[in-house]
Amino acid sequence: MTNINLHSRSLVTIDDLSNGEIEALFSLTDEMSESLNEQSEVCRGKIMASLFFEPSTRTRLSFETAMLRLGGHVISAIDIGSSSLSKGESIADMARVAGSYADIIVIRHPWEGAARVVADYAGIPVINAGDGSHAHPTQTLCDLYTLKKEKQTLKGLKIAFWGDLKHGRTTHSLSYALARFGATILFHPSPGLEMPEHVLRKLTAECGGKLERDTAALGYASGEKFFPVEAAYITPNHPHQLAMMPDICMQVEFKTGVDALYVTRLQKERFVASPTKEGELQNAYPVVDKKLLERKEFKKTLVMHPLPRVDELAYEIDADPRSMYFKQAARGVPVRMALISLMLGDRNITVPEEIKPFGPKTYHPTYKHGTEIRCPNPICISNQETEIKYIRPEFRIVNLEPPILECTYCEHELRPKFIASSDWHEGTLEYKNYHKADSHWIRKIKPDNLIVFTTEEEALAQGFKPDKHIAQNDENSE
Amino acid sequence: MTNINLHSRSLVTIDDLSNGEIEALFSLTDEMSESLNEQSEVCRGKIMASLFFEPSTRTRLSFETAMLRLGGHVISAIDIGSSSLSKGESIADMARVAGSYADIIVIRHPWEGAARVVADYAGIPVINAGDGSHAHPTQTLCDLYTLKKEKQTLKGLKIAFWGDLKHGRTTHSLSYALARFGATILFHPSPGLEMPEHVLRKLTAECGGKLERDTAALGYASGEKFFPVEAAYITPNHPHQLAMMPDICMQVEFKTGVDALYVTRLQKERFVASPTKEGELQNAYPVVDKKLLERKEFKKTLVMHPLPRVDELAYEIDADPRSMYFKQAARGVPVRMALISLMLGDRNITVPEEIKPFGPKTYHPTYKHGTEIRCPNPICISNQETEIKYIRPEFRIVNLEPPILECTYCEHELRPKFIASSDWHEGTLEYKNYHKADSHWIRKIKPDNLIVFTTEEEALAQGFKPDKHIAQNDENSE
Amino acid sequence: MTNINLHSRSLVTIDDLSNGEIEALFSLTDEMSESLNEQSEVCRGKIMASLFFEPSTRTRLSFETAMLRLGGHVISAIDIGSSSLSKGESIADMARVAGSYADIIVIRHPWEGAARVVADYAGIPVINAGDGSHAHPTQTLCDLYTLKKEKQTLKGLKIAFWGDLKHGRTTHSLSYALARFGATILFHPSPGLEMPEHVLRKLTAECGGKLERDTAALGYASGEKFFPVEAAYITPNHPHQLAMMPDICMQVEFKTGVDALYVTRLQKERFVASPTKEGELQNAYPVVDKKLLERKEFKKTLVMHPLPRVDELAYEIDADPRSMYFKQAARGVPVRMALISLMLGDRNITVPEEIKPFGPKTYHPTYKHGTEIRCPNPICISNQETEIKYIRPEFRIVNLEPPILECTYCEHELRPKFIASSDWHEGTLEYKNYHKADSHWIRKIKPDNLIVFTTEEEALAQGFKPDKHIAQNDENSE
Repeated sequence: MTNINLHSRSLVTIDDLSNGEIEALFSLTDEMSESLNEQSEVCRGKIMASLFFEPSTRTRLSFETAMLRLGGHVISAIDIGSSSLSKGESIADMARVAGSYADIIVIRHPWEGAARVVADYAGIPVINAGDGSHAHPTQTLCDLYTLKKEKQTLKGLKIAFWGDLKHGRTTHSLSYALARFGATILFHPSPGLEMPEHVLRKLTAECGGKLERDTAALGYASGEKFFPVEAAYITPNHPHQLAMMPDICMQVEFKTGVDALYVTRLQKERFVASPTKEGELQNAYPVVDKKLLERKEFKKTLVMHPLPRVDELAYEIDADPRSMYFKQAARGVPVRMALISLMLGDRNITVPEEIKPFGPKTYHPTYKHGTEIRCPNPICISNQETEIKYIRPEFRIVNLEPPILECTYCEHELRPKFIASSDWHEGTLEYKNYHKADSHWIRKIKPDNLIVFTTEEEALAQGFKPDKHIAQNDENSE
Repeated sequence: MTNINLHSRSLVTIDDLSNGEIEALFSLTDEMSESLNEQSEVCRGKIMASLFFEPSTRTRLSFETAMLRLGGHVISAIDIGSSSLSKGESIADMARVAGSYADIIVIRHPWEGAARVVADYAGIPVINAGDGSHAHPTQTLCDLYTLKKEKQTLKGLKIAFWGDLKHGRTTHSLSYALARFGATILFHPSPGLEMPEHVLRKLTAECGGKLERDTAALGYASGEKFFPVEAAYITPNHPHQLAMMPDICMQVEFKTGVDALYVTRLQKERFVASPTKEGELQNAYPVVDKKLLERKEFKKTLVMHPLPRVDELAYEIDADPRSMYFKQAARGVPVRMALISLMLGDRNITVPEEIKPFGPKTYHPTYKHGTEIRCPNPICISNQETEIKYIRPEFRIVNLEPPILECTYCEHELRPKFIASSDWHEGTLEYKNYHKADSHWIRKIKPDNLIVFTTEEEALAQGFKPDKHIAQNDENSE
Repeated sequence: MTNINLHSRSLVTIDDLSNGEIEALFSLTDEMSESLNEQSEVCRGKIMASLFFEPSTRTRLSFETAMLRLGGHVISAIDIGSSSLSKGESIADMARVAGSYADIIVIRHPWEGAARVVADYAGIPVINAGDGSHAHPTQTLCDLYTLKKEKQTLKGLKIAFWGDLKHGRTTHSLSYALARFGATILFHPSPGLEMPEHVLRKLTAECGGKLERDTAALGYASGEKFFPVEAAYITPNHPHQLAMMPDICMQVEFKTGVDALYVTRLQKERFVASPTKEGELQNAYPVVDKKLLERKEFKKTLVMHPLPRVDELAYEIDADPRSMYFKQAARGVPVRMALISLMLGDRNITVPEEIKPFGPKTYHPTYKHGTEIRCPNPICISNQETEIKYIRPEFRIVNLEPPILECTYCEHELRPKFIASSDWHEGTLEYKNYHKADSHWIRKIKPDNLIVFTTEEEALAQGFKPDKHIAQNDENSE
């Protein structure tokens, strides 16, 4: 038996929990679900600070209910935007003060990466309840828990994602988690709202597995009557080793049915669209209704949704036993009760040895020359006026060919145009050259020495000179 | 002894409680009042969701105080307007989610009928803390409790209503309740703010009793120096059988004094007035002051007010023992404690057999052909964009000559202009006629077959033809 | 041993507590600090109403945390501005209603003097959590407690005030308190943000001590390299009897080092400045950084700040052991726990006889002819439309030569231009004269008979005539 220890740890992204820890958490959730009203001594007298810099009634009430059912107390700030911050206070200062009042912090903030900073400064456990489009790990836990509860396992499930896959924080996080647990994911975006490339890249690069985009293979354009998908992530530990088989097998496989349909609403508030564009997207948005659920491949398909819904789920399916969305919301309470009690050290749980995390966590080297570059994400916390006073930009090198950096705070990608080394020819000026990012030079630079530039001007400003290929090109273009 | 059972029931309007249940509730309130601070085990660990879509600090804090004094917890959402709803969520979805977190819901919403929908979908007991101008039953309970406590009985009391009787949700609800308990009501509106006709109709139609509008009889224009009223509702079980006596008796009766003066402020926020109009109404608004209370008929008169007051109660009478308004507010806590504990099934109460509801509850047949008509109240929940997806309009037929329908949600009246039958002459097209609502045909149509129209166009669109009277009229008018 | 009794008392300004009571409170704070999580039976079941008419997350959460750690409950209204008040409710009515729900009230309000009115009407203990620029006594208690805790005593400390001394409610209150405990205060304002004259006057008039403004004596312009100050308040019970010594001693004294540097941010929200002016003030604002703290006189100096900071404290000093600002915030919880438990009568504390208040509290006669004058402070509660209906202006005569009145609510000064007596020559009209406020007549008028005027028109309107000096002057000026 292994003792799972989440005491004093923070949960900023789902990556902060191993698969084993998640399984253990679900086991405690089962226990809590069975006696929701008998947990009132577990966190007796502890205080949760519920800090919502952005309104989210559902999530906040779910966390507060969880804490109260555990016998704890809640201090709640949903007005912060209009008080401290208007006086110019930094997130770090707010975190330190709240950390000196409460025993655990739940934070929602529009700036991406904000929860990481709160966790760094609060001195007490912190749960991210959503930081912009970055992460919302307890939502992912509720989704996984529902799947696990209804289908007994996550391994080998076929989950279809439906709707706005572009802005859906929920679907991005859930896709990583599903991949880690060995599920296969079918993408069925509303037109123009496809899964972003960086999510697809991360899926295959970090979780193994294969991305299938051949629409013929997927039956998308095949004239077949089954569920058309635009792309699919095929897990490497798929029971039938599907990824190794000819395409025709995949179609057959899909015909056996989808385990869950994960639907999201059009996230209007996440993109600055023209009213016309928004109207078009809304009109083209697919609707899950009674008729759709009558199709053979959806016979045993759970219909899931993070709520609130708008029009993408017809009210007529609410009473259908396959509709899971209200159950998902209800299960948010025991999932969060289990999480809070573990993080406060008020409960512990042991799991069988055989529950192991799926694969080792990918190690990414830290980018060491970060002072000159900034995260390209304008709503990353590292770019905010009140925060740059104390936050140093930080990046991980998540890919080399081509070089891709990832912001430690908001996990956005930075794809540099030019590269150089801090250790080239013993640093003599003559050879202090910069190169194109997609050139062969990337293979000769050690990650520790890598320097990246977004523009040639940046490279020149730091005393680097173009290599001969770039110089030649520049001449030609003149 | 009868056991009063409110367990798992909801309170949307005061009509949801029988007179006997109200008496029982008051008996428990007495018990709670005597030991407010010793009730902390009654609802230990239960959670109340306090959902205020409209600000109302006083009412919210009263409910929250009640729950906390019972040992329960509160999750509170006063920011909902700006979060879930802006994402287009329906009231039903919100109710289902909150119902899966909490044990009881208290809801305040600007849309009339919203509390009914919440009660329909939440799956847990729901208390209406005010839905637009529709109902606010716990305010009525506090008012009744204060009267009962101070005067020992409600039966036969003479209560004068003073001020804005037009927009006063409080006065409408209270008048029905007082009538049910056998009180007589004197209406003294501020000019232009008279009690609406539909309230007066309901009073006499449903509670029996008689409406007296003869100002001479009421002493209004009689030159007498006593309190002038514009109209009076005379209860049928008035101790002296006043309703049967000549008018002169009534004046004498009124001279014996008024038991309570129920004052309300000018409800500016409930009507869209021009600033000029508002100023005029404010200036003409009657003020209760020391001088007024010196009059003989007010010698033993309780001064009541739901608060907040503006200028209609002079501060100089605050210390007067007849001033009840702060007591009314204070008693809101034990009244709500009693109510919550009964609805959660954490307390029960038995009452003597002889406490019976006053008369049988009026039965109104349901209107069966409701698909084509809509509630005429623009802020009825059944007319809201996010709600029409799942709410079917529903009406009760509350009167036949002339036909009056009442919306099941907001209880607004619909007075159709034209009528027809779904069962006329075995439905042959030739006789598929529509008639004027005030014609003799209404007596020939069974309520189950009644079809109503607001305009001739509606009737024609549904394939009906004008009867000969209408046809003739139409010709003449051309 | 003396039993300290704060039961059922209110805390509106720091003057409501004697020095002995403050010492006793700190002793209980020490006890609470040592076992923060074991106080949950102290106020079990009591309810605190947290009424914030102005946002202040930090202060509110500190109070709520304190109450919850004591086992009490909290009802919280941070939306009041937009509900009751918009309906025109008075502070007094709000206080009476909240007082009938809760056991203790914490109030924050933008109107100066509001907390006094709440305390007058609530019927339960009230704590002022900030009323405009008037008072915020628990902030002062936290500041004093930190000084006491770190330096063991308050007597004889040298505290430097740094930054915006003009708008800083915090610094005004703290300066009075420090003076009462026998500390010396050095003023180092940002240019244009000097300590107001009325604060300096009150310091010397009420606490004894001496104000030193000779910049040479203070070393301000002396070319010396130590900390320059603009003025200093020298306590009368300074250990070395500094006030009696020649100036040169003071410089020497200051060189021995400053005990604490009390820094405040530029309180932008407290003054209506042109953007240009604000920018200038911000640019000229002094910054406490690593370099400054390296100076010899700051070797053992605590850096204090009420938070939130903006740019006046560099982040680089956060880890310095002399930085106290996060400790100050953290200590707010046990200080408030001690205070609340004493005011609710749930704890009591005895102190040694020798702890005596510093000097007797100054007695100021009440101004008896207050009906015609109003407080000159436009945001004083006595000047608000909803409050003038019941609040009578009230003043204390705090100085005679020249005459100065102080508003009982907001404690603003009123300096009249003209004076008269209600008892002059037995009130014969012939001698009913008014005089210049700075004339010798002030010495002949008994405080009980004093009548003051802001303008000659006021005096004339009340039937007074100019004395011969004024009359002559008026003629000359024509």
